[in-house]
Amino acid sequence: MNRYWDAANYLTVAQIYLQENALLTSPLTAEHIKPRLLGHWGTSPGLSLIYVHLNRLIRNTGARVLFVAGPGHGGPAVIANLYLEGSYSEIYPRVSQDPKGLLRLIRQFSTPGGIPSHVGPPTPGSIHEGGELGYSLAHATGAVMDNPELIVACVIGDGEAETGPLEGAWKAPAFINPRRDGAVLPILHLNGYKISGPTVLGRQSDEQVMALLRAHGWDPVVVSGSDPALVHPMLAQALDSAHARILQIQEQARHTSASTPAPWPAIILRTPKGWTGPDFVDGVAMEGTFRSHQVPLAGVRENPAHLAQLEAWLRSYKPETLFDPQGRLVPDLAALAPDADLRMGANPWANGGSDVAPLPMRPLENYAVEVGTPGSMKHETTKPLGEMLRDVYTDTAHDPRFRLFSPDETNSNRLGAVFEVTDRCLMGPVRDGDDRLSPNGRVMEVLSEHLCQGWLEGYVLSGRYGLFATYEAFAMVSASMTIQHAKWLQHARELPWRQPVPSLNIMLTSTCWRNDHNGFSHQGPGLIDTVLSLSGSVIRVYLPPDSNTLLAVAEHVLLSKDYVNLVVVDKQAHPQYLNLEDARRHAAAGASIWHWAGNESQARETEPDIVLACAGDVPTEETLAAAWLLQHHVPQLGVRVINVMDALVLPPPDVHPHGLSEPDFEKLFTTNGEVIVAWHGYARAFHQLLHGRVNPGRFHVRGYSEQGSTTTPFDMVVLNKMSRYHLALEALHRVSGHFDGARELADHCRIMLADHETYIRQHLEDMPEVREWVWTPPTEIGDAP
Amino acid sequence: MNRYWDAANYLTVAQIYLQENALLTSPLTAEHIKPRLLGHWGTSPGLSLIYVHLNRLIRNTGARVLFVAGPGHGGPAVIANLYLEGSYSEIYPRVSQDPKGLLRLIRQFSTPGGIPSHVGPPTPGSIHEGGELGYSLAHATGAVMDNPELIVACVIGDGEAETGPLEGAWKAPAFINPRRDGAVLPILHLNGYKISGPTVLGRQSDEQVMALLRAHGWDPVVVSGSDPALVHPMLAQALDSAHARILQIQEQARHTSASTPAPWPAIILRTPKGWTGPDFVDGVAMEGTFRSHQVPLAGVRENPAHLAQLEAWLRSYKPETLFDPQGRLVPDLAALAPDADLRMGANPWANGGSDVAPLPMRPLENYAVEVGTPGSMKHETTKPLGEMLRDVYTDTAHDPRFRLFSPDETNSNRLGAVFEVTDRCLMGPVRDGDDRLSPNGRVMEVLSEHLCQGWLEGYVLSGRYGLFATYEAFAMVSASMTIQHAKWLQHARELPWRQPVPSLNIMLTSTCWRNDHNGFSHQGPGLIDTVLSLSGSVIRVYLPPDSNTLLAVAEHVLLSKDYVNLVVVDKQAHPQYLNLEDARRHAAAGASIWHWAGNESQARETEPDIVLACAGDVPTEETLAAAWLLQHHVPQLGVRVINVMDALVLPPPDVHPHGLSEPDFEKLFTTNGEVIVAWHGYARAFHQLLHGRVNPGRFHVRGYSEQGSTTTPFDMVVLNKMSRYHLALEALHRVSGHFDGARELADHCRIMLADHETYIRQHLEDMPEVREWVWTPPTEIGDAP
Repeated sequence: MNRYWDAANYLTVAQIYLQENALLTSPLTAEHIKPRLLGHWGTSPGLSLIYVHLNRLIRNTGARVLFVAGPGHGGPAVIANLYLEGSYSEIYPRVSQDPKGLLRLIRQFSTPGGIPSHVGPPTPGSIHEGGELGYSLAHATGAVMDNPELIVACVIGDGEAETGPLEGAWKAPAFINPRRDGAVLPILHLNGYKISGPTVLGRQSDEQVMALLRAHGWDPVVVSGSDPALVHPMLAQALDSAHARILQIQEQARHTSASTPAPWPAIILRTPKGWTGPDFVDGVAMEGTFRSHQVPLAGVRENPAHLAQLEAWLRSYKPETLFDPQGRLVPDLAALAPDADLRMGANPWANGGSDVAPLPMRPLENYAVEVGTPGSMKHETTKPLGEMLRDVYTDTAHDPRFRLFSPDETNSNRLGAVFEVTDRCLMGPVRDGDDRLSPNGRVMEVLSEHLCQGWLEGYVLSGRYGLFATYEAFAMVSASMTIQHAKWLQHARELPWRQPVPSLNIMLTSTCWRNDHNGFSHQGPGLIDTVLSLSGSVIRVYLPPDSNTLLAVAEHVLLSKDYVNLVVVDKQAHPQYLNLEDARRHAAAGASIWHWAGNESQARETEPDIVLACAGDVPTEETLAAAWLLQHHVPQLGVRVINVMDALVLPPPDVHPHGLSEPDFEKLFTTNGEVIVAWHGYARAFHQLLHGRVNPGRFHVRGYSEQGSTTTPFDMVVLNKMSRYHLALEALHRVSGHFDGARELADHCRIMLADHETYIRQHLEDMPEVREWVWTPPTEIGDAP
Repeated sequence: MNRYWDAANYLTVAQIYLQENALLTSPLTAEHIKPRLLGHWGTSPGLSLIYVHLNRLIRNTGARVLFVAGPGHGGPAVIANLYLEGSYSEIYPRVSQDPKGLLRLIRQFSTPGGIPSHVGPPTPGSIHEGGELGYSLAHATGAVMDNPELIVACVIGDGEAETGPLEGAWKAPAFINPRRDGAVLPILHLNGYKISGPTVLGRQSDEQVMALLRAHGWDPVVVSGSDPALVHPMLAQALDSAHARILQIQEQARHTSASTPAPWPAIILRTPKGWTGPDFVDGVAMEGTFRSHQVPLAGVRENPAHLAQLEAWLRSYKPETLFDPQGRLVPDLAALAPDADLRMGANPWANGGSDVAPLPMRPLENYAVEVGTPGSMKHETTKPLGEMLRDVYTDTAHDPRFRLFSPDETNSNRLGAVFEVTDRCLMGPVRDGDDRLSPNGRVMEVLSEHLCQGWLEGYVLSGRYGLFATYEAFAMVSASMTIQHAKWLQHARELPWRQPVPSLNIMLTSTCWRNDHNGFSHQGPGLIDTVLSLSGSVIRVYLPPDSNTLLAVAEHVLLSKDYVNLVVVDKQAHPQYLNLEDARRHAAAGASIWHWAGNESQARETEPDIVLACAGDVPTEETLAAAWLLQHHVPQLGVRVINVMDALVLPPPDVHPHGLSEPDFEKLFTTNGEVIVAWHGYARAFHQLLHGRVNPGRFHVRGYSEQGSTTTPFDMVVLNKMSRYHLALEALHRVSGHFDGARELADHCRIMLADHETYIRQHLEDMPEVREWVWTPPTEIGDAP
């Protein structure tokens, strides 16, 4: 074991330093050293120690273990182990287990044209990149859900352990059900330091750290020491016990009726930072201090003393006893690694799973809302989606592979139909008065966007399907996770050996326009902007205007792979416009002319006098009302209404694959006409989308402009100057030429806005009913849908 | 006490329901009920109980207590208490303590034109809005830093306690020094439920919750019950003990040499959700369940049974015994509230403090870098800032009011000069080999962006100054906090009684362009985009190109009030361009022509053939190199170089107060000429900024386009098509007319890019030195600076 660990450590140091003489078959010279030294040594020996001991456990027990390296900057250690176990060379045949491959292994590390210094998408066996710290334990937890045979060994560095998201993730035992889920085995690796200072846990006593983990439902043991001869047997013993305990907990839960879950095993491993590296460099302590975080010997090319120290360090592992002259691990060591799929670098769950069935979907007809005259009926837009998800739960009950994640808002988001067939999941005691709560539930409600999203990421990266439904404004809490996941997918898509994985679906409900009741802090459509900055190859943004379009979008995104899908839709009762057939057509097109809402016939030769475009439920309602006002008061005016439900049809096709060709774009928005846009988010985001289109200056965009308070829904659109009256006034302002009725309509709009102002002001005095300014469907004008 | 609590609860229910008959002097009718019922009852009685008992503590001891309401949606409870203690009416005279004021109090709540339902900027005594959950404890901790007499009573709801940021904030005892800081008294208020399900801590045993807090360095007591007669004395006793213990800890630390801090007191309060409200509604249990979260009786206007139940509920508090006929709290109750500034609604620290001195700043000459020929010398740009901050620490040592916050990157960010005069703060044991670590240090390093930013927010909202220096990509971790803080400031600025508070300064270092070593996951300039979406009244974005401009910006932002200042600057060695005088002038202008870098004289009559604009350090270097290439190879071409260091000069002045007038804008960017832009962030952000300018299509923007890996710095600009060669090619493409040398330069650029491509590809084969593509200062051409 110790020799195998030596081999891993040797290859780690070799990756950081060497470009030649990989096995030190000749004396080390400055020419053997890479021109630029990068990498993180400090955490690496600990990662390798854990890896080697997990190998032992797997060989002894046949356990199926997925490895999550929270300290992902210890990339060279993980790669060394993947190379030693052979999984690396299978995926990257050029990095073969021979002198040529070995040379490539050391050269490629953190080198231009080579591989990144962090564990990430190119790392076999990984579902986690440890760059932005905080999510290892949440990813591990998501991966074991509905994965009863899997154990995720999750290494958590003491730096990461300081982050809020990681601290929040310790509560996993409250949500892991041993009857149906696999097991997370946290290995809290405390080496005491981050880059330049100690960590909080690193300075706490064993008792304090154990108490913390115990409080969260874990049963930790401490393995601590700096003498490998003592640490090896302790760690082996700790892993054996932990594994036995996991099996016992699962056995009990699966075969008896015991319901109170015992605490789950966890390991606290305290070993020196930069263990087995140089003790002192230039008289300064190195091993066991923060100074070993990155490259302990920085001057090896110029400083012969450093070079000699490096050579001694490398030779301390006795490479000649570890590798044969062909650079192959000697047979007695190679025999210590597990075989085939049991190798952690070949774990199929790290690559989307090997046998995950597709998600069953019943025909949307089952859920479609009957829509007569467009806009004549209001419906809680997300409610039919709840019914659809209910049936997904039903149809996957025998082979669970779908979960809904939400910060306690499933009912509030009108998705409550899922509770007809499943419960909220909580391992704690169920009490009288609890509503649809049980350890067997598959609706994951926890008041933490980080946990909801982190769990879902672990769940989809291991091949299963899910949806994160959350408050629009508070989706920004986990915005950085959305960015990192998109980066992961962008990179993973370029790797032919990575299977496509189900998309990360984020549904933003309780949107800014309808947070009139909760106020300004609850109003923020910023995640759209964040997502739009990311690579077009992976991001999608949908704004279905009603229930049936939402169903069509939901079907698409739930079945899709390798995307980050943002679906923006409010949960409250909104007018419904399209029957299912039209909704499907509209969703497939991404943007269409709503002929029934304008007054041009499809046969009309000339272009309309004005185009009104809208995206999102509330903007659509205001636009339709503005279109009605214009047609009613200014009948000679040619009005076209366009609904955009896929925001990414707007950019040119070279910017995003959904982008409409210029001719198709002009078929909708005309060649040169003025376009008044009502947009769900910040107006600037829409302008961004138009960048690269001919003459974007003709688009006049209204959107959320960071104005709001606790007020009425209609006042929200007034405050942000996106009301029907503002849109109609803007349209009249942009139209060229004289039209009868235009001046009267403008007066009418101004009067209505003044009237609204008075109404709002008088609230404190008279407390009138809250005025609803519902759009009246224009049955009397326009074409049929 | 109980009667005072009754009064608070009565006014809470009245705010949620009533628009007339505030004191129930006549039988309740449907007409007395508000047209729309909003608000959160569930948490309110608990908040009021705590408030009432804190009042008692303050009266008995003279303690200076600031109240942080983590469950900020319990707004009506906090407002009820502010009204009862009189501080509310002093700030809002129209909400007077008489029948008219009382009517206004109940009517204004969660009503259009009234006040928001959450605690927030309009709430006297508050530095915290409890909408986006997770930051109460971090805000409380920041507020007590360097505030030795202050106690922040921080109520944490069990919903908020599930969030990652809150869990991460429990580690405050590791960073609070009783010798110089005040005390945080966490009151974990467990009522068991969030909106529709139980909470994790709510279902845990007292022992488990106590163990969790103990593990983090607190010494909790549990106060639990549903019988007020029993809970009152327990809570009073717990608060008395906690206060005595705080004084004892502080006394010991301040007057003896005891160095190991004892655990800090904390209170776990378990009371029923919706306590004193209806037990059952329509046969369903209400009090003590999640169903009392918002409005327990929803149908009071239509349902006479509900109306009767509401009346019984209201009358259960016996309002006639609490208020005199003038609506004033009866004298024996009014006497229970503290006086003057001791009232929590009048705590001066919640309003920027009463005696915070300005931040001393020595002349920038002390730190300025000597710059000869622009670009002839490289310097770590942020290093002089470290010296400046060092002196700020020195000059505030006797009256501490400045702190630097960073996730363990102070040295890495080249701000290490601060360690000449202060240390990293950690209360834990200091060990051999630690570097500048002590409990007395004022550099706050914790590997949590949430904590760094949350602490800083609490620090500045209570009137002190600070800077959060962090990794550009990982600043997105706390992006939602940046948004919420900007919303707070935007609202607070409109309130004349709120003092301006020092700005929230966020410095983004380790930027995308120089994360060639850490790779793709570390490359993300998204916070710029996030900030640009927020209100122009509070946000500022600076991209100083070198050290002296950074000094000028830093001086400005550190002294500024009520802004969110984003300063984007890389930490590594970059060419230096401007001497201090020029830097000051440039910083004041926000954007200037760099005549020395182009070839037009200031007297030149005609406009240049091409304008090259740049913003940010790396884009500036590439632009200057492109400008040199153009002038060297195509001498007849008129080239202008503009550096933009204040991004918000770009939008029109009606969009942002820094926006240049159209004539000034055209003086820089010409009227109609083509402009090639190299921009630090996503190109779209720059386009956004230009929105509203005449003919924005003439701006051709290169920026970070989500391309990157572990590679060389120069390859980063190549991958994102922002290299000097890309810029020169784009310029040549946009210039109209024939210029000698243009074709040769284009060929040269293409050859250089192909050569670079070959160089990158050969890395794995030859391991060449990393090429530096440094810009050579064009001393031989152009004007003098």
